[in-house]
Amino acid sequence: MAARFDTISFLSDYGHEDEFVGVVHSVIRSIAPHVAIIDVTHGITPHDTRAGGLALARAANYLCPGVVVAVVDPGVGTRRRAVAIEVGDGASYLIGPDNGLLAPAVGLVGGATRAIELTSQDHRLPLAGGATFDGRDVFAPAAAHLCNGVPLEQLGEDIDTTGLVPGVLPVSQIEGDELVAEVLWIDRFGNCQLNVDPADIDHLGTTMLVIMANTEKIGMRTEAYDQIPTGRAGLMVDSSGLLSLAIARGSAASEFNLAEGDEIRLAATDGQQGGATIAVEIQRKEHRR
Amino acid sequence: MAARFDTISFLSDYGHEDEFVGVVHSVIRSIAPHVAIIDVTHGITPHDTRAGGLALARAANYLCPGVVVAVVDPGVGTRRRAVAIEVGDGASYLIGPDNGLLAPAVGLVGGATRAIELTSQDHRLPLAGGATFDGRDVFAPAAAHLCNGVPLEQLGEDIDTTGLVPGVLPVSQIEGDELVAEVLWIDRFGNCQLNVDPADIDHLGTTMLVIMANTEKIGMRTEAYDQIPTGRAGLMVDSSGLLSLAIARGSAASEFNLAEGDEIRLAATDGQQGGATIAVEIQRKEHRR
Amino acid sequence: MAARFDTISFLSDYGHEDEFVGVVHSVIRSIAPHVAIIDVTHGITPHDTRAGGLALARAANYLCPGVVVAVVDPGVGTRRRAVAIEVGDGASYLIGPDNGLLAPAVGLVGGATRAIELTSQDHRLPLAGGATFDGRDVFAPAAAHLCNGVPLEQLGEDIDTTGLVPGVLPVSQIEGDELVAEVLWIDRFGNCQLNVDPADIDHLGTTMLVIMANTEKIGMRTEAYDQIPTGRAGLMVDSSGLLSLAIARGSAASEFNLAEGDEIRLAATDGQQGGATIAVEIQRKEHRR
Repeated sequence: MAARFDTISFLSDYGHEDEFVGVVHSVIRSIAPHVAIIDVTHGITPHDTRAGGLALARAANYLCPGVVVAVVDPGVGTRRRAVAIEVGDGASYLIGPDNGLLAPAVGLVGGATRAIELTSQDHRLPLAGGATFDGRDVFAPAAAHLCNGVPLEQLGEDIDTTGLVPGVLPVSQIEGDELVAEVLWIDRFGNCQLNVDPADIDHLGTTMLVIMANTEKIGMRTEAYDQIPTGRAGLMVDSSGLLSLAIARGSAASEFNLAEGDEIRLAATDGQQGGATIAVEIQRKEHRR
Repeated sequence: MAARFDTISFLSDYGHEDEFVGVVHSVIRSIAPHVAIIDVTHGITPHDTRAGGLALARAANYLCPGVVVAVVDPGVGTRRRAVAIEVGDGASYLIGPDNGLLAPAVGLVGGATRAIELTSQDHRLPLAGGATFDGRDVFAPAAAHLCNGVPLEQLGEDIDTTGLVPGVLPVSQIEGDELVAEVLWIDRFGNCQLNVDPADIDHLGTTMLVIMANTEKIGMRTEAYDQIPTGRAGLMVDSSGLLSLAIARGSAASEFNLAEGDEIRLAATDGQQGGATIAVEIQRKEHRR
Repeated sequence: MAARFDTISFLSDYGHEDEFVGVVHSVIRSIAPHVAIIDVTHGITPHDTRAGGLALARAANYLCPGVVVAVVDPGVGTRRRAVAIEVGDGASYLIGPDNGLLAPAVGLVGGATRAIELTSQDHRLPLAGGATFDGRDVFAPAAAHLCNGVPLEQLGEDIDTTGLVPGVLPVSQIEGDELVAEVLWIDRFGNCQLNVDPADIDHLGTTMLVIMANTEKIGMRTEAYDQIPTGRAGLMVDSSGLLSLAIARGSAASEFNLAEGDEIRLAATDGQQGGATIAVEIQRKEHRR
């Protein structure tokens, strides 16, 4: 059997406090010693499938061809399926729980061309206890075997790709004169990525109102963090191509008390500021993710 | 000299904030560039040799054959010995301080077949300062040289394997109608692993009293985190085969204010609940770790 | 083109919460699959170029020959230069922002023998959004191409090495009878590295006054953490060869409420303790870093 892939990209909510990540690496190396494992991140908030799916999507275009293992899996041990999803007619495979985690990345790279449920008992580890660590017992072995050249169909039964659990991602909306957006992601630096295509706020000019739950700020369009004046909020195109709320040399999330999922409204500085009038949704735009 | 091993598994309490882990990787690669290093975990609480020993034991059965370097070493620089322990008649080696850290893993894989104290000056780095970083100066070079094929006896003097510092692990006990257990490990998700073989509570049925320092809960046996009803405590067989106290999509440790080492008593819901009577230890069971 | 280096050492303030580190690894592997990447650390406090520069310098003597990528880059997207610095006439290269981050390590290994500004559009990734992630788009590709054998001059324009931004590191001073030092680094264990060559306090003997902002302690010279009596402060030569303030099995930083950059004064136990007299700086000593 000829080796097929030499890279596994691995994302999870396992953290680095425990030995979970190291054990998964060991299992992969035991089965497929030729494979290099790239840790995309293991810092996803425990059980946060949405955050894990977004992180994987942000990384997707940069990952090496091969196999992706992604595990954010609060439903481990229940009837949620363990799946391997083929993309690009076999260019790469994504392996993990069928709970929406893989969906944004799969969509971003063109959609599933095939999928199986990982049911083969010959391609998983014997249980050492309960079925609580599928990353070790199911996903890692499947990924390693795929890299070794085991055909997808030997790992389990074909399933209908249209039946895979979709990712649910919020779209920004226009309500009256305001663009109603949401914080998709707060990074380590406190930059707040919004579900806003920068082109959608071009009509607002270089300064605009940023309306948050507890405060309003004047935000200015900038191209670099350090161009944001002290005490001001910057609105930048970030490295994913989405709009991001930032401050210079500090955390916008801390400064403005924001969390992932929070609503943020953007409006012209001379426009309506909401409040007294009930805004009506007049348009819904699909954004890229 | 023919290379002997191509994998070093590395566990420590070094964390990822500083450059300790990266420097150890660099030292190993400088001496033995063919070796792949698997980071088991570096998130052990500083100086917590018990937690480090348990993490290494949980991982042990999954590690690749080769050399294990484990460093949780509050006594660095004192007369505590630096050792290399052979297991399986040379199948693998464990390297680290002789302070009990390695003992649980060594025991789990069948015990030491030989041991040396790492005294060879030719197989360590010259000190750049004080003797406070034996991971860099002593353990990493020894591991790399072993991988390169240097015979164990060249790294130091043979020592009596029965004189190695043992790991001290708590065993659960039966007191009256209660099983008196201890929290061995709290993982990132807040699941609390107990020193309890699940078979030892089969007589308690599917629901039982879980008596903690400040609260009592009804615990129910389940097979998956998501089968635990909201507000209830679950008792599951975890991925190591031990009993674990958990809640669904949350941290049992936070919910019940538990720390590693805390006592937990399990009893039948219709049985004695301790308190007024002085329980007598009537049986002591040795558990696997 | 013949591969030139097979190791990239990578340090940043990216942390492990997000996918930044994994994406940089993926980009390098996509361009130069033969390269091993060693993560020196990604735990530098966000934007703290001084701490990043010190960590890189502490590691420098242990890194494998090849390319170093270091990214602590609050000025990303501004006119600060992206540079590649040659050291040892091509023995190794350091790549990152020209903001002082690389300077301590460059100095430690003998200084720059050449430098270029990374201006080649052919050796960076096309922007997917804003210019906020030069680690992915500029530094990683440049490092990978260098490893592949691309000559330095193809990556950009030669620049004057004397014009590179220097690192600014504090030197300890003698004021009256006191050595006025500064906390350079607090490690995970809470040990406080000072900018003090141990030889400079030999005249103070084995015990001395340690004068901190809010407290004074008697410090004793020791060689191992566990030789420090409970409740006492130890002064040790650390693994970098500098003086470190420590306590046994605990955090000196927490115990004495110290932060990086804090001033610490060392004096003879029978000497002046400052306060009433205005000390005059009578000598300035350059220390190694």
